[in-house]
Amino acid sequence: MDNRPIGVFDSGIGGLTVLREIKKQIPNENLIYYADTARVPYGPRPKEEILRFSKEAVDFLIQKDIKVLVIACNTVTAIAYDYLIENIDIPVLGVIDPGVRAVMNAGDIKTLGLIATKATVESMQYQNRLYKGDAGLKIIARACPMLVSIVEEGWAGTDISKLIIERYLQDFKDSSMDAIILACTHFPVLRDQIAEFLTDDIMIIDPAEETAKELKRILKDSDIENGLKDNTDTKFYVSDKADKFKSIAEKLVDINEVFEVAIGSR
Amino acid sequence: MDNRPIGVFDSGIGGLTVLREIKKQIPNENLIYYADTARVPYGPRPKEEILRFSKEAVDFLIQKDIKVLVIACNTVTAIAYDYLIENIDIPVLGVIDPGVRAVMNAGDIKTLGLIATKATVESMQYQNRLYKGDAGLKIIARACPMLVSIVEEGWAGTDISKLIIERYLQDFKDSSMDAIILACTHFPVLRDQIAEFLTDDIMIIDPAEETAKELKRILKDSDIENGLKDNTDTKFYVSDKADKFKSIAEKLVDINEVFEVAIGSR
Repeated sequence: MDNRPIGVFDSGIGGLTVLREIKKQIPNENLIYYADTARVPYGPRPKEEILRFSKEAVDFLIQKDIKVLVIACNTVTAIAYDYLIENIDIPVLGVIDPGVRAVMNAGDIKTLGLIATKATVESMQYQNRLYKGDAGLKIIARACPMLVSIVEEGWAGTDISKLIIERYLQDFKDSSMDAIILACTHFPVLRDQIAEFLTDDIMIIDPAEETAKELKRILKDSDIENGLKDNTDTKFYVSDKADKFKSIAEKLVDINEVFEVAIGSR
Repeated sequence: MDNRPIGVFDSGIGGLTVLREIKKQIPNENLIYYADTARVPYGPRPKEEILRFSKEAVDFLIQKDIKVLVIACNTVTAIAYDYLIENIDIPVLGVIDPGVRAVMNAGDIKTLGLIATKATVESMQYQNRLYKGDAGLKIIARACPMLVSIVEEGWAGTDISKLIIERYLQDFKDSSMDAIILACTHFPVLRDQIAEFLTDDIMIIDPAEETAKELKRILKDSDIENGLKDNTDTKFYVSDKADKFKSIAEKLVDINEVFEVAIGSR
Protein backbone atom coordinates (compact mmCIF):
# COMPACT_ATOMS: atom_id res chain seq x y z
CA MET A 1 0.00 0.00 0.00
CA ASP A 2 1.36 3.41 -0.96
CA ASN A 3 -0.60 6.64 -0.79
CA ARG A 4 1.98 8.78 -2.62
CA PRO A 5 0.66 10.39 -5.82
CA ILE A 6 1.04 9.22 -9.42
CA GLY A 7 2.85 11.82 -11.55
CA VAL A 8 1.49 12.56 -15.03
CA PHE A 9 3.49 14.74 -17.42
CA ASP A 10 2.65 16.38 -20.74
CA SER A 11 3.69 19.58 -22.49
CA GLY A 12 0.06 20.76 -22.63
CA ILE A 13 -3.55 19.62 -22.45
CA GLY A 14 -3.29 16.44 -24.57
CA GLY A 15 -2.21 14.34 -21.60
CA LEU A 16 -5.49 15.11 -19.87
CA THR A 17 -7.09 12.31 -21.90
CA VAL A 18 -4.64 9.94 -20.19
CA LEU A 19 -5.35 11.52 -16.80
CA ARG A 20 -9.07 11.14 -17.47
CA GLU A 21 -8.68 7.43 -18.19
CA ILE A 22 -6.58 6.96 -15.05
CA LYS A 23 -9.24 8.67 -12.93
CA LYS A 24 -11.89 6.48 -14.55
CA GLN A 25 -10.09 3.16 -14.18
CA ILE A 26 -8.27 3.85 -10.88
CA PRO A 27 -10.42 6.40 -9.05
CA ASN A 28 -8.81 5.98 -5.64
CA GLU A 29 -5.36 7.38 -6.33
CA ASN A 30 -3.77 10.75 -5.66
CA LEU A 31 -2.59 12.37 -8.88
CA ILE A 32 -0.29 15.22 -9.90
CA TYR A 33 -0.53 16.55 -13.46
CA TYR A 34 2.26 18.79 -14.66
CA ALA A 35 1.97 20.61 -18.01
CA ASP A 36 4.91 22.61 -19.37
CA THR A 37 2.55 25.14 -20.91
CA ALA A 38 5.21 27.86 -21.15
CA ARG A 39 7.07 25.80 -23.72
CA VAL A 40 4.27 23.87 -25.46
CA PRO A 41 4.34 22.53 -28.17
CA TYR A 42 7.35 20.22 -27.89
CA GLY A 43 6.73 18.63 -31.32
CA PRO A 44 8.74 21.04 -33.48
CA ARG A 45 11.70 21.32 -31.06
CA PRO A 46 15.12 19.66 -31.35
CA LYS A 47 15.47 16.34 -29.51
CA GLU A 48 18.11 17.62 -27.07
CA GLU A 49 15.77 20.39 -25.99
CA ILE A 50 12.82 18.03 -25.46
CA LEU A 51 15.06 15.74 -23.41
CA ARG A 52 16.25 18.66 -21.28
CA PHE A 53 12.70 19.93 -20.68
CA SER A 54 11.56 16.39 -19.80
CA LYS A 55 14.33 15.99 -17.24
CA GLU A 56 13.33 19.30 -15.62
CA ALA A 57 9.69 18.21 -15.48
CA VAL A 58 10.54 14.82 -14.02
CA ASP A 59 12.83 16.38 -11.39
CA PHE A 60 9.89 18.52 -10.31
CA LEU A 61 7.55 15.54 -10.07
CA ILE A 62 10.13 13.42 -8.20
CA GLN A 63 10.44 16.26 -5.65
CA LYS A 64 6.68 15.92 -5.17
CA ASP A 65 7.38 12.32 -4.10
CA ILE A 66 5.48 10.50 -6.85
CA LYS A 67 5.40 6.69 -6.81
CA VAL A 68 4.98 6.18 -10.58
CA LEU A 69 5.67 8.43 -13.59
CA VAL A 70 3.28 8.45 -16.55
CA ILE A 71 4.56 10.22 -19.66
CA ALA A 72 1.23 11.26 -21.13
CA CYS A 73 2.66 12.54 -24.41
CA ASN A 74 3.73 10.73 -27.57
CA THR A 75 6.54 13.17 -28.39
CA VAL A 76 8.13 12.91 -24.95
CA THR A 77 7.68 9.14 -24.88
CA ALA A 78 9.38 8.84 -28.26
CA ILE A 79 12.36 10.91 -27.18
CA ALA A 80 12.80 10.62 -23.40
CA TYR A 81 11.33 7.23 -22.38
CA ASP A 82 14.53 5.21 -22.80
CA TYR A 83 16.53 7.80 -20.87
CA LEU A 84 13.97 8.00 -18.06
CA ILE A 85 13.55 4.26 -17.45
CA GLU A 86 17.31 3.99 -17.03
CA ASN A 87 17.79 7.04 -14.85
CA ILE A 88 14.95 7.24 -12.38
CA ASP A 89 14.15 4.84 -9.57
CA ILE A 90 10.37 4.57 -9.82
CA PRO A 91 8.27 2.78 -12.48
CA VAL A 92 7.91 4.79 -15.73
CA LEU A 93 5.08 4.31 -18.20
CA GLY A 94 4.90 5.86 -21.67
CA VAL A 95 1.92 5.91 -24.02
CA ILE A 96 3.47 4.14 -27.01
CA ASP A 97 4.11 0.60 -25.70
CA PRO A 98 0.59 0.18 -24.22
CA GLY A 99 -0.92 1.22 -27.56
CA VAL A 100 1.32 -1.15 -29.48
CA ARG A 101 0.52 -4.05 -27.14
CA ALA A 102 -3.19 -3.38 -27.52
CA VAL A 103 -2.84 -3.74 -31.31
CA MET A 104 -0.95 -7.02 -30.86
CA ASN A 105 -3.48 -8.38 -28.37
CA ALA A 106 -6.55 -7.36 -30.37
CA GLY A 107 -5.97 -10.31 -32.70
CA ASP A 108 -6.46 -10.48 -36.43
CA ILE A 109 -5.58 -6.86 -37.33
CA LYS A 110 -4.14 -7.01 -40.84
CA THR A 111 -4.42 -3.36 -41.81
CA LEU A 112 -4.03 -0.59 -39.23
CA GLY A 113 -4.57 3.15 -39.62
CA LEU A 114 -2.21 5.24 -37.51
CA ILE A 115 -3.21 8.85 -36.92
CA ALA A 116 -0.89 11.22 -35.08
CA THR A 117 1.03 14.48 -35.33
CA LYS A 118 3.61 14.91 -38.10
CA ALA A 119 6.41 14.49 -35.53
CA THR A 120 5.06 11.18 -34.21
CA VAL A 121 4.42 9.79 -37.70
CA GLU A 122 7.92 10.76 -38.83
CA SER A 123 9.60 9.43 -35.66
CA MET A 124 8.56 5.88 -36.77
CA GLN A 125 8.32 4.89 -33.09
CA TYR A 126 4.90 3.25 -33.42
CA GLN A 127 5.62 1.74 -36.82
CA ASN A 128 8.93 0.17 -35.79
CA ARG A 129 7.46 -1.35 -32.63
CA LEU A 130 4.38 -2.60 -34.49
CA TYR A 131 6.45 -4.19 -37.28
CA LYS A 132 8.62 -5.84 -34.63
CA GLY A 133 5.48 -7.43 -33.16
CA ASP A 134 3.97 -8.35 -36.52
CA ALA A 135 6.16 -8.03 -39.58
CA GLY A 136 3.17 -8.69 -41.86
CA LEU A 137 1.03 -5.84 -40.52
CA LYS A 138 0.06 -3.18 -43.06
CA ILE A 139 0.20 0.29 -41.50
CA ILE A 140 -1.22 3.37 -43.14
CA ALA A 141 0.14 6.33 -41.15
CA ARG A 142 -1.34 9.80 -41.49
CA ALA A 143 -0.43 13.11 -39.86
CA CYS A 144 -3.63 14.90 -38.82
CA PRO A 145 -2.48 18.26 -37.41
CA MET A 146 -5.92 19.88 -37.73
CA LEU A 147 -7.32 17.35 -35.26
CA VAL A 148 -4.88 18.71 -32.67
CA SER A 149 -5.78 22.34 -33.44
CA ILE A 150 -9.49 21.69 -33.17
CA VAL A 151 -9.16 20.09 -29.74
CA GLU A 152 -6.89 22.94 -28.57
CA GLU A 153 -9.55 25.40 -29.76
CA GLY A 154 -12.29 23.54 -27.86
CA TRP A 155 -14.25 22.78 -31.03
CA ALA A 156 -14.57 19.00 -30.65
CA GLY A 157 -18.09 17.80 -31.40
CA THR A 158 -18.91 20.57 -33.87
CA ASP A 159 -19.76 20.45 -37.58
CA ILE A 160 -16.23 21.63 -38.27
CA SER A 161 -14.57 18.74 -36.44
CA LYS A 162 -16.95 16.37 -38.23
CA LEU A 163 -15.86 17.69 -41.64
CA ILE A 164 -12.17 17.55 -40.73
CA ILE A 165 -12.50 13.95 -39.52
CA GLU A 166 -14.24 13.02 -42.78
CA ARG A 167 -11.53 14.65 -44.84
CA TYR A 168 -8.70 12.88 -43.04
CA LEU A 169 -10.36 9.48 -42.71
CA GLN A 170 -12.61 9.01 -45.76
CA ASP A 171 -10.22 6.60 -47.49
CA PHE A 172 -9.65 4.72 -44.23
CA LYS A 173 -13.39 4.13 -44.17
CA ASP A 174 -13.51 3.17 -47.85
CA SER A 175 -10.68 0.66 -47.51
CA SER A 176 -10.91 -2.67 -45.74
CA MET A 177 -9.06 -1.41 -42.70
CA ASP A 178 -9.43 -3.43 -39.49
CA ALA A 179 -8.48 -0.89 -36.82
CA ILE A 180 -7.25 2.63 -36.22
CA ILE A 181 -4.93 3.75 -33.41
CA LEU A 182 -5.31 7.22 -31.88
CA ALA A 183 -1.57 7.88 -31.59
CA CYS A 184 -1.91 11.43 -30.30
CA THR A 185 -3.19 12.21 -26.82
CA HIS A 186 -5.51 14.91 -28.20
CA PHE A 187 -7.51 12.50 -30.34
CA PRO A 188 -9.55 10.62 -27.70
CA VAL A 189 -11.45 13.91 -27.24
CA LEU A 190 -12.77 13.30 -30.76
CA ARG A 191 -13.32 9.57 -30.26
CA ASP A 192 -17.14 9.63 -30.42
CA GLN A 193 -17.15 11.59 -33.68
CA ILE A 194 -14.44 9.38 -35.16
CA ALA A 195 -16.34 6.23 -34.15
CA GLU A 196 -19.58 7.59 -35.57
CA PHE A 197 -17.90 8.29 -38.89
CA LEU A 198 -15.98 5.01 -39.16
CA THR A 199 -18.91 2.90 -37.87
CA ASP A 200 -18.42 -0.40 -36.02
CA ASP A 201 -16.52 -1.95 -38.91
CA ILE A 202 -13.25 -0.34 -37.81
CA MET A 203 -12.00 -0.93 -34.26
CA ILE A 204 -10.62 2.09 -32.41
CA ILE A 205 -7.55 1.58 -30.24
CA ASP A 206 -6.88 4.31 -27.71
CA PRO A 207 -3.40 4.30 -26.12
CA ALA A 208 -4.70 6.51 -23.26
CA GLU A 209 -7.11 3.77 -22.25
CA GLU A 210 -4.42 1.11 -22.56
CA THR A 211 -1.93 3.17 -20.58
CA ALA A 212 -4.39 3.46 -17.69
CA LYS A 213 -4.98 -0.31 -17.84
CA GLU A 214 -1.24 -1.01 -17.62
CA LEU A 215 -0.83 1.50 -14.82
CA LYS A 216 -3.56 -0.29 -12.85
CA ARG A 217 -1.73 -3.59 -13.34
CA ILE A 218 1.62 -2.10 -12.30
CA LEU A 219 0.16 -0.65 -9.09
CA LYS A 220 -1.39 -4.00 -8.24
CA ASP A 221 1.61 -6.16 -9.15
CA SER A 222 4.02 -3.90 -7.27
CA ASP A 223 1.61 -3.67 -4.33
CA ILE A 224 1.69 0.12 -4.39
CA GLU A 225 -2.03 0.82 -4.67
CA ASN A 226 -3.35 3.60 -2.50
CA GLY A 227 -4.50 2.29 0.89
CA LEU A 228 -6.47 5.37 1.91
CA LYS A 229 -9.53 5.30 -0.30
CA ASP A 230 -11.03 8.60 0.82
CA ASN A 231 -9.95 12.17 0.19
CA THR A 232 -7.83 11.41 -2.85
CA ASP A 233 -7.16 14.45 -4.99
CA THR A 234 -5.64 15.63 -8.27
CA LYS A 235 -3.29 18.60 -8.25
CA PHE A 236 -2.48 20.57 -11.39
CA TYR A 237 0.77 22.46 -11.98
CA VAL A 238 1.64 24.50 -15.08
CA SER A 239 4.68 26.53 -16.15
CA ASP A 240 2.62 29.32 -17.78
CA LYS A 241 -0.61 31.08 -16.76
CA ALA A 242 -2.96 28.98 -14.63
CA ASP A 243 -6.15 30.64 -15.93
CA LYS A 244 -5.27 29.96 -19.54
CA PHE A 245 -4.73 26.27 -18.83
CA LYS A 246 -7.80 25.95 -16.65
CA SER A 247 -10.20 27.45 -19.18
CA ILE A 248 -9.32 24.79 -21.77
CA ALA A 249 -8.57 21.90 -19.42
CA GLU A 250 -11.83 22.01 -17.49
CA LYS A 251 -13.65 20.99 -20.63
CA LEU A 252 -11.87 17.65 -20.30
CA VAL A 253 -11.55 16.97 -16.56
CA ASP A 254 -12.79 18.39 -13.24
CA ILE A 255 -10.32 20.93 -11.94
CA ASN A 256 -10.19 22.79 -8.68
CA GLU A 257 -7.07 24.88 -8.42
CA VAL A 258 -4.15 25.15 -10.87
CA PHE A 259 -0.75 26.14 -9.50
CA GLU A 260 1.88 28.07 -11.46
CA VAL A 261 5.46 26.88 -11.02
CA ALA A 262 8.73 28.23 -12.42
CA ILE A 263 10.55 25.35 -14.09
CA GLY A 264 13.46 25.71 -16.51
CA SER A 265 14.62 28.86 -18.29
CA ARG A 266 12.13 31.02 -20.14
CA MET B 1 20.66 51.40 -59.01
CA ASP B 2 21.49 48.26 -57.05
CA ASN B 3 21.03 44.70 -58.31
CA ARG B 4 21.72 42.99 -54.98
CA PRO B 5 18.84 40.87 -53.68
CA ILE B 6 16.16 41.74 -51.14
CA GLY B 7 16.22 39.39 -48.14
CA VAL B 8 12.93 38.07 -46.79
CA PHE B 9 12.85 36.14 -43.51
CA ASP B 10 10.17 34.07 -41.78
CA SER B 11 10.15 31.01 -39.55
CA GLY B 12 7.98 29.12 -42.04
CA ILE B 13 5.61 29.50 -44.97
CA GLY B 14 3.54 32.46 -43.71
CA GLY B 15 6.04 35.00 -45.05
CA LEU B 16 5.39 33.74 -48.56
CA THR B 17 2.30 35.96 -48.68
CA VAL B 18 4.65 38.91 -48.21
CA LEU B 19 7.04 37.54 -50.83
CA ARG B 20 4.12 37.09 -53.21
CA GLU B 21 3.07 40.72 -52.78
CA ILE B 22 6.66 41.89 -53.32
CA LYS B 23 6.90 39.87 -56.54
CA LYS B 24 3.56 41.31 -57.66
CA GLN B 25 4.33 44.94 -56.88
CA ILE B 26 8.07 44.95 -57.64
CA PRO B 27 8.59 42.18 -60.19
CA ASN B 28 12.07 43.24 -61.29
CA GLU B 29 14.01 42.51 -58.13
CA ASN B 30 16.21 39.62 -57.05
CA LEU B 31 14.88 37.97 -53.90
CA ILE B 32 16.14 35.58 -51.24
CA TYR B 33 13.61 33.90 -48.96
CA TYR B 34 14.94 32.20 -45.85
CA ALA B 35 12.62 30.05 -43.70
CA ASP B 36 13.88 28.59 -40.42
CA THR B 37 11.74 25.50 -40.93
CA ALA B 38 13.81 23.37 -38.52
CA ARG B 39 12.64 25.55 -35.65
CA VAL B 40 9.17 26.67 -36.76
CA PRO B 41 6.92 27.75 -35.05
CA TYR B 42 8.57 30.63 -33.21
CA GLY B 43 5.31 31.73 -31.56
CA PRO B 44 5.45 29.62 -28.40
CA ARG B 45 9.19 30.18 -27.77
CA PRO B 46 10.80 32.47 -25.18
CA LYS B 47 11.74 35.94 -26.44
CA GLU B 48 15.48 35.46 -25.98
CA GLU B 49 15.37 32.37 -28.17
CA ILE B 50 13.41 34.11 -30.93
CA LEU B 51 15.90 37.00 -30.84
CA ARG B 52 18.85 34.60 -31.07
CA PHE B 53 17.30 32.69 -34.00
CA SER B 54 16.52 35.97 -35.76
CA LYS B 55 20.11 37.16 -35.43
CA GLU B 56 21.34 33.88 -36.93
CA ALA B 57 18.91 34.20 -39.83
CA VAL B 58 19.85 37.81 -40.50
CA ASP B 59 23.59 37.00 -40.37
CA PHE B 60 22.97 34.41 -43.07
CA LEU B 61 21.07 36.86 -45.26
CA ILE B 62 23.67 39.61 -44.77
CA GLN B 63 26.34 37.14 -45.95
CA LYS B 64 24.25 36.73 -49.10
CA ASP B 65 24.74 40.48 -49.62
CA ILE B 66 21.14 41.64 -49.40
CA LYS B 67 20.35 45.33 -49.83
CA VAL B 68 17.17 45.41 -47.71
CA LEU B 69 15.82 43.09 -45.01
CA VAL B 70 12.11 42.30 -44.85
CA ILE B 71 10.93 40.56 -41.66
CA ALA B 72 7.94 38.73 -43.08
CA CYS B 73 6.65 37.48 -39.73
CA ASN B 74 4.61 39.17 -37.02
CA THR B 75 6.26 37.29 -34.15
CA VAL B 76 9.80 38.18 -35.26
CA THR B 77 8.79 41.77 -36.00
CA ALA B 78 7.29 42.11 -32.53
CA ILE B 79 10.40 40.79 -30.82
CA ALA B 80 13.44 41.52 -33.02
CA TYR B 81 12.59 44.61 -35.11
CA ASP B 82 13.90 47.20 -32.63
CA TYR B 83 17.13 45.27 -32.17
CA LEU B 84 17.65 44.78 -35.91
CA ILE B 85 17.09 48.40 -37.00
CA GLU B 86 19.72 49.48 -34.49
CA ASN B 87 22.26 46.79 -35.27
CA ILE B 88 22.35 46.24 -39.00
CA ASP B 89 23.47 48.67 -41.69
CA ILE B 90 20.80 48.14 -44.34
CA PRO B 91 17.15 49.23 -44.35
CA VAL B 92 14.91 46.91 -42.27
CA LEU B 93 11.18 46.56 -42.80
CA GLY B 94 8.78 44.70 -40.49
CA VAL B 95 5.14 43.84 -41.17
CA ILE B 96 3.55 45.61 -38.21
CA ASP B 97 4.23 49.30 -38.94
CA PRO B 98 3.00 49.15 -42.56
CA GLY B 99 -0.24 47.53 -41.41
CA VAL B 100 -0.71 50.12 -38.68
CA ARG B 101 -0.05 53.01 -41.09
CA ALA B 102 -2.57 51.55 -43.54
CA VAL B 103 -5.25 51.64 -40.84
CA MET B 104 -4.35 55.27 -40.03
CA ASN B 105 -4.37 56.28 -43.68
CA ALA B 106 -7.61 54.51 -44.57
CA GLY B 107 -9.57 57.28 -42.86
CA ASP B 108 -12.70 57.01 -40.79
CA ILE B 109 -12.09 53.61 -39.22
CA LYS B 110 -13.82 53.71 -35.84
CA THR B 111 -14.02 50.01 -35.06
CA LEU B 112 -11.29 47.61 -36.20
CA GLY B 113 -11.19 43.83 -35.99
CA LEU B 114 -7.69 42.44 -35.44
CA ILE B 115 -7.18 38.76 -36.22
CA ALA B 116 -3.86 37.09 -35.49
CA THR B 117 -2.17 34.27 -33.58
CA LYS B 118 -2.51 34.13 -29.79
CA ALA B 119 1.09 35.32 -29.44
CA THR B 120 0.55 38.40 -31.62
CA VAL B 121 -2.72 39.32 -29.94
CA GLU B 122 -1.16 38.98 -26.49
CA SER B 123 2.00 40.91 -27.45
CA MET B 124 -0.18 44.06 -27.81
CA GLN B 125 2.21 45.31 -30.52
CA TYR B 126 -0.52 46.18 -33.01
CA GLN B 127 -2.92 47.49 -30.38
CA ASN B 128 -0.35 49.79 -28.73
CA ARG B 129 0.78 51.26 -32.05
CA LEU B 130 -2.81 51.69 -33.23
CA TYR B 131 -3.91 53.41 -30.00
CA LYS B 132 -0.85 55.68 -30.29
CA GLY B 133 -2.07 56.73 -33.76
CA ASP B 134 -5.73 57.04 -32.75
CA ALA B 135 -6.56 56.88 -29.06
CA GLY B 136 -10.28 56.72 -29.87
CA LEU B 137 -10.08 53.64 -32.07
CA LYS B 138 -12.06 50.64 -30.87
CA ILE B 139 -10.12 47.41 -31.46
CA ILE B 140 -11.63 43.95 -31.15
CA ALA B 141 -8.72 41.53 -31.18
CA ARG B 142 -9.21 37.81 -31.71
CA ALA B 143 -6.76 34.91 -31.80
CA CYS B 144 -7.65 32.61 -34.72
CA PRO B 145 -5.21 29.69 -34.47
CA MET B 146 -7.30 27.39 -36.68
CA LEU B 147 -6.83 29.80 -39.59
CA VAL B 148 -3.09 29.19 -39.34
CA SER B 149 -3.51 25.40 -39.17
CA ILE B 150 -5.79 25.34 -42.18
CA VAL B 151 -3.33 27.26 -44.34
CA GLU B 152 -0.46 25.04 -43.16
CA GLU B 153 -2.55 22.00 -44.14
CA GLY B 154 -3.23 23.44 -47.61
CA TRP B 155 -7.01 23.51 -47.06
CA ALA B 156 -7.68 27.16 -47.88
CA GLY B 157 -10.71 27.57 -50.15
CA THR B 158 -12.51 24.47 -48.87
CA ASP B 159 -15.86 24.08 -47.07
CA ILE B 160 -13.89 23.57 -43.87
CA SER B 161 -12.05 26.89 -44.10
CA LYS B 162 -15.37 28.57 -44.93
CA LEU B 163 -16.97 27.20 -41.74
CA ILE B 164 -13.97 28.14 -39.59
CA ILE B 165 -13.98 31.69 -40.97
CA GLU B 166 -17.71 31.97 -40.21
CA ARG B 167 -17.22 30.71 -36.67
CA TYR B 168 -14.43 33.18 -35.90
CA LEU B 169 -15.90 36.20 -37.68
CA GLN B 170 -19.70 35.92 -37.40
CA ASP B 171 -19.96 38.61 -34.70
CA PHE B 172 -17.52 40.86 -36.60
CA LYS B 173 -19.97 40.66 -39.49
CA ASP B 174 -22.98 41.26 -37.25
CA SER B 175 -21.43 44.32 -35.59
CA SER B 176 -20.92 47.68 -37.25
CA MET B 177 -17.21 47.09 -37.76
CA ASP B 178 -15.45 49.27 -40.35
CA ALA B 179 -12.36 47.23 -41.15
CA ILE B 180 -10.43 44.09 -40.30
CA ILE B 181 -6.65 43.71 -40.30
CA LEU B 182 -5.06 40.38 -41.25
CA ALA B 183 -2.34 40.53 -38.59
CA CYS B 184 -0.88 37.10 -39.36
CA THR B 185 1.06 36.40 -42.54
CA HIS B 186 -0.89 33.18 -43.12
CA PHE B 187 -4.23 34.91 -43.42
CA PRO B 188 -3.94 36.59 -46.85
CA VAL B 189 -4.15 33.05 -48.28
CA LEU B 190 -7.74 33.05 -47.00
CA ARG B 191 -8.46 36.62 -48.09
CA ASP B 192 -10.98 35.79 -50.82
CA GLN B 193 -13.04 33.60 -48.53
CA ILE B 194 -12.87 36.16 -45.71
CA ALA B 195 -13.95 38.95 -48.09
CA GLU B 196 -16.80 36.85 -49.47
CA PHE B 197 -18.06 36.20 -45.94
CA LEU B 198 -17.70 39.75 -44.64
CA THR B 199 -19.01 41.34 -47.87
CA ASP B 200 -17.97 44.80 -49.03
CA ASP B 201 -19.23 46.45 -45.85
CA ILE B 202 -16.03 45.64 -43.98
CA MET B 203 -12.69 46.78 -45.45
CA ILE B 204 -9.83 44.26 -45.36
CA ILE B 205 -6.36 45.57 -44.54
CA ASP B 206 -3.51 43.27 -45.44
CA PRO B 207 -0.11 44.13 -43.90
CA ALA B 208 1.62 41.97 -46.54
CA GLU B 209 0.30 44.24 -49.28
CA GLU B 210 1.24 47.36 -47.31
CA THR B 211 4.72 46.03 -46.57
CA ALA B 212 5.38 45.51 -50.29
CA LYS B 213 4.15 49.06 -50.99
CA GLU B 214 6.52 50.51 -48.41
CA LEU B 215 9.37 48.40 -49.72
CA LYS B 216 8.76 49.77 -53.20
CA ARG B 217 8.89 53.32 -51.84
CA ILE B 218 12.09 52.65 -49.87
CA LEU B 219 13.85 51.22 -52.93
CA LYS B 220 12.83 54.25 -54.97
CA ASP B 221 13.63 56.89 -52.35
CA SER B 222 17.03 55.36 -51.57
CA ASP B 223 17.71 54.91 -55.28
CA ILE B 224 18.49 51.22 -54.84
CA GLU B 225 16.06 49.75 -57.36
CA ASN B 226 17.40 46.96 -59.54
CA GLY B 227 18.94 48.33 -62.74
CA LEU B 228 19.06 45.01 -64.57
CA LYS B 229 15.45 44.28 -65.42
CA ASP B 230 15.97 40.82 -66.94
CA ASN B 231 16.92 37.52 -65.40
CA THR B 232 15.88 38.41 -61.88
CA ASP B 233 15.30 35.39 -59.68
CA THR B 234 14.06 34.24 -56.27
CA LYS B 235 16.17 31.83 -54.25
CA PHE B 236 14.72 29.78 -51.38
CA TYR B 237 16.73 28.55 -48.39
CA VAL B 238 15.37 26.47 -45.50
CA SER B 239 16.91 25.02 -42.35
CA ASP B 240 14.96 21.72 -42.54
CA LYS B 241 14.02 19.44 -45.44
CA ALA B 242 13.71 21.21 -48.80
CA ASP B 243 11.05 18.82 -50.17
CA LYS B 244 8.77 19.34 -47.20
CA PHE B 245 8.89 23.12 -47.62
CA LYS B 246 8.51 22.98 -51.37
CA SER B 247 5.40 20.80 -51.35
CA ILE B 248 3.49 23.34 -49.25
CA ALA B 249 5.13 26.53 -50.52
CA GLU B 250 4.54 25.92 -54.21
CA LYS B 251 0.82 26.27 -53.59
CA LEU B 252 1.54 29.92 -52.80
CA VAL B 253 4.40 30.98 -55.10
CA ASP B 254 6.36 29.64 -58.05
CA ILE B 255 9.41 27.80 -56.83
CA ASN B 256 12.31 26.30 -58.71
CA GLU B 257 14.90 24.94 -56.34
CA VAL B 258 14.97 25.03 -52.54
CA PHE B 259 18.35 24.88 -50.80
CA GLU B 260 18.94 23.35 -47.36
CA VAL B 261 21.31 25.29 -45.10
CA ALA B 262 22.60 24.51 -41.62
CA ILE B 263 21.92 27.54 -39.42
CA GLY B 264 22.06 27.58 -35.63
CA SER B 265 22.12 24.61 -33.27
CA ARG B 266 19.58 21.84 -33.65
